[in-house]
Amino acid sequence: MFPRNTWYVACTPDEIVDRPLGRRICGERLVFYRGADGKVAALEDFCPHRGAPLSLGFVRDGQLVCGYHGLQMGCNGKTVAMPGQRVQGFPCIRSYPVVERYGFIWVWPGDAAQADPASIHHLEWADNPEWAYGGGLYHINCDYRLMIDNLMDLTHETYVHASSIGQKEIDEAPVNTRVEDEEVITSRFMENVMAPPFWRAALRANSLPEDAPVDRWQICRFTAPSHVMIEVGVALAGRGGYDAPPEVKASSVVVDFITPETATSHWYFWGMARNFKPQDTELTAAIRTGQGKIFGEDRDMLEQQQENILRHPERKLLMLNIDAGGVQSRRILDRHLKNELPA
Amino acid sequence: MFPRNTWYVACTPDEIVDRPLGRRICGERLVFYRGADGKVAALEDFCPHRGAPLSLGFVRDGQLVCGYHGLQMGCNGKTVAMPGQRVQGFPCIRSYPVVERYGFIWVWPGDAAQADPASIHHLEWADNPEWAYGGGLYHINCDYRLMIDNLMDLTHETYVHASSIGQKEIDEAPVNTRVEDEEVITSRFMENVMAPPFWRAALRANSLPEDAPVDRWQICRFTAPSHVMIEVGVALAGRGGYDAPPEVKASSVVVDFITPETATSHWYFWGMARNFKPQDTELTAAIRTGQGKIFGEDRDMLEQQQENILRHPERKLLMLNIDAGGVQSRRILDRHLKNELPA
Amino acid sequence: MFPRNTWYVACTPDEIVDRPLGRRICGERLVFYRGADGKVAALEDFCPHRGAPLSLGFVRDGQLVCGYHGLQMGCNGKTVAMPGQRVQGFPCIRSYPVVERYGFIWVWPGDAAQADPASIHHLEWADNPEWAYGGGLYHINCDYRLMIDNLMDLTHETYVHASSIGQKEIDEAPVNTRVEDEEVITSRFMENVMAPPFWRAALRANSLPEDAPVDRWQICRFTAPSHVMIEVGVALAGRGGYDAPPEVKASSVVVDFITPETATSHWYFWGMARNFKPQDTELTAAIRTGQGKIFGEDRDMLEQQQENILRHPERKLLMLNIDAGGVQSRRILDRHLKNELPA
Repeated sequence: MFPRNTWYVACTPDEIVDRPLGRRICGERLVFYRGADGKVAALEDFCPHRGAPLSLGFVRDGQLVCGYHGLQMGCNGKTVAMPGQRVQGFPCIRSYPVVERYGFIWVWPGDAAQADPASIHHLEWADNPEWAYGGGLYHINCDYRLMIDNLMDLTHETYVHASSIGQKEIDEAPVNTRVEDEEVITSRFMENVMAPPFWRAALRANSLPEDAPVDRWQICRFTAPSHVMIEVGVALAGRGGYDAPPEVKASSVVVDFITPETATSHWYFWGMARNFKPQDTELTAAIRTGQGKIFGEDRDMLEQQQENILRHPERKLLMLNIDAGGVQSRRILDRHLKNELPA
Repeated sequence: MFPRNTWYVACTPDEIVDRPLGRRICGERLVFYRGADGKVAALEDFCPHRGAPLSLGFVRDGQLVCGYHGLQMGCNGKTVAMPGQRVQGFPCIRSYPVVERYGFIWVWPGDAAQADPASIHHLEWADNPEWAYGGGLYHINCDYRLMIDNLMDLTHETYVHASSIGQKEIDEAPVNTRVEDEEVITSRFMENVMAPPFWRAALRANSLPEDAPVDRWQICRFTAPSHVMIEVGVALAGRGGYDAPPEVKASSVVVDFITPETATSHWYFWGMARNFKPQDTELTAAIRTGQGKIFGEDRDMLEQQQENILRHPERKLLMLNIDAGGVQSRRILDRHLKNELPA
Repeated sequence: MFPRNTWYVACTPDEIVDRPLGRRICGERLVFYRGADGKVAALEDFCPHRGAPLSLGFVRDGQLVCGYHGLQMGCNGKTVAMPGQRVQGFPCIRSYPVVERYGFIWVWPGDAAQADPASIHHLEWADNPEWAYGGGLYHINCDYRLMIDNLMDLTHETYVHASSIGQKEIDEAPVNTRVEDEEVITSRFMENVMAPPFWRAALRANSLPEDAPVDRWQICRFTAPSHVMIEVGVALAGRGGYDAPPEVKASSVVVDFITPETATSHWYFWGMARNFKPQDTELTAAIRTGQGKIFGEDRDMLEQQQENILRHPERKLLMLNIDAGGVQSRRILDRHLKNELPA
């Protein structure tokens, strides 16, 4: 269903400022919090005393304190103390490898011995003053792979997002799909088209004419377990397209981290990184609002697609050329899953 | 559970004006829309491409277009086109016989080869300028047969609808039940009684004295699969009752189409047809509002009755004389069901 | 799961003033109402005619009348009459022993032959003009035994009720647990401490200084099946504590009746009885409001604890010294359950 020996985005730092965060990931209930020295910790959300969720507690002096009877839990899953009790014999709860990097908190739900922070997906736009990032989080009731399919085939923009980023030329442009090592890439180039509303606004924001014809591109990159980074942009027509100089284009990276919650639900971390006017925080907020609205349009479709599929498990869906990105991504996932099987 | 080789009311024309309508009928998810030439079509609500519900799409040039990736579906269940794709090999989805008649859209969920529009229940009051009709739709969480029982035994009016159409004389009047071919008829006649509030208003609307004693009648007619037409009315006492001349009575036909959604839920199309003051649209609206309120009173009772029955599947309910209408109606349904079994 | 041959609090008189009350107790649906002479009756909530819930009906002349078709049910479960029907052959529904006492309505869900009203838990503060009582009812989605655990170990006050009745000295005071016949008693005494907000208000209400050091006590008494009475109070420090004279203390009895609804839900009747200023109805209302807020704080914790336990049925929870009250209470319940097994 989902690989476990891998890093997933679990939450963002703002979600654990005031109190611990309980979140289900890959079917397991976890609690995230900042422990000693502000270091992020992830534990089973289960107090070994009476089974209360630790996420209903609070953090004191770097220890997670159960909100029911005050058991103090260490970030390694061992009870540190409890009022009036000897705790040496208390059973441990599971702790999870967790890393804070690039403005996200990453968790490894699988075998801790294999967890190598160096294998976290590199984000070239993060922690880079030439880039700005804004994003959000949606909870979506469908298999995380349906979201991967969605993002690896952007023909749906014409239909689901008709009023913002869709345009008929997407459908008309052939899609190219290729696999490079552990990466699946689908790409589309449209030449000499008029920009749809979202890109007109971006051209305006970048001090470019919004009514001039543009060359438009979409390059979707999937990497396991469920990251999809999409280079998108428009350049004044005939100025080099994707390779045009910065002053005649508006471009960005759509950022998608898709973290399974259960077999039929996931946490969808969406956002956009851009390398024009990175200091313009109002622009960041405006883009975030617009993107949030657009990306919310997929939810109803994906959730009802999931319901339809659950009702008809016997039906084989079509795998057209436009679906090749999703198909290839699932192959990589299947290989990961096979590698995790006991020998 | 429910016959399939029969016509059910699926929806009303106003439900498919702006967009396709997804509706579950006899356990199956269908999409209804107006295709070429405004002709109504009914299909499985399942896009053969990736399983999206077609009801989330739209109609363009008489084709149903999937709202996810633009597949164009024909009203026969064969894909017509899809941007950038050859569609000849696409699997068909199921199409359903569907007919628009009498102000309703009728669907045949069973074997299409047997679907004969001539067998649609004739409605003498429809498309007739001497009659006016107003009605509505309720979703009710109970077996559609509990609603048939409800409508074939109007003693419940005294209790469920005490403030509008109920009166103690209903309980006191003997019910007569008979079966004529494929029709079950229960009838009750009350002589020289005072009209309850709903009928006082109808007398007033018909320019008759509301305080005079009346003769009142209720004649319920069930026909398969789940239509119950009820002739109801009052006439000034001693003027012929049911057979009294129009100028001394107020009468109408209560119209009930009960369409199974699942084994324990149904769509309840209710309404009233009358042949007095048919041009008075304000009166039609007032009657519709009043009837909607009254018919909504049954919902809580029926849904909780269903829950009680589900909790006690082992208990045999009583079948009294007042229940004979429901019992006979179920016999007809059982015969239909038996006929549908594979030989 | 829960003993049946015992008395549970089913409801309070104000719940059956206007209409019958449907309530699920020990897994069974019951209807409560006042029958002939205002005497409370309890029956299965199932009309023998067509399975409608009798709680949707009404009471007329001491008979419960079904709201669907007017069947009149007697308080012994035998149908008394029905319009136009002979009812002698109608099947009986179950009636339950029920007693109104101490301002509560008590029901015996088990073998009626064993139901002895004399065995109802005596409440010394009820029907006593020197005492005042105020309380309320919460529906809680957890095993009733988790609530017993909660109430027999008040260390949770420090964490769950930090802003009202919690204080660190509770944790620091050793708990004493003992079993006397069929009663489990846990007790805690804190000497020379400052009163927390709830008790400061009580001192004020009792015309005592709220800033003076106090001796505080908590004595929890469990009796089967699920009653927990807690003597709580504070006295000016050094004046005798629990045994101090009335004029230097504020004390009361926390009243808890915990009635199982299903295996994982219960009705929680909470309240407080006090023997100071019993005529002060404003004080009663103020205490009730404060207690209602405090006791509502447990709900989220208990319901999520229940969910965690259901997810991990294989895990053995810890049983520390502070848990001994709950552990001993469950032993008594287990003995009751064993006694109810068929020989």
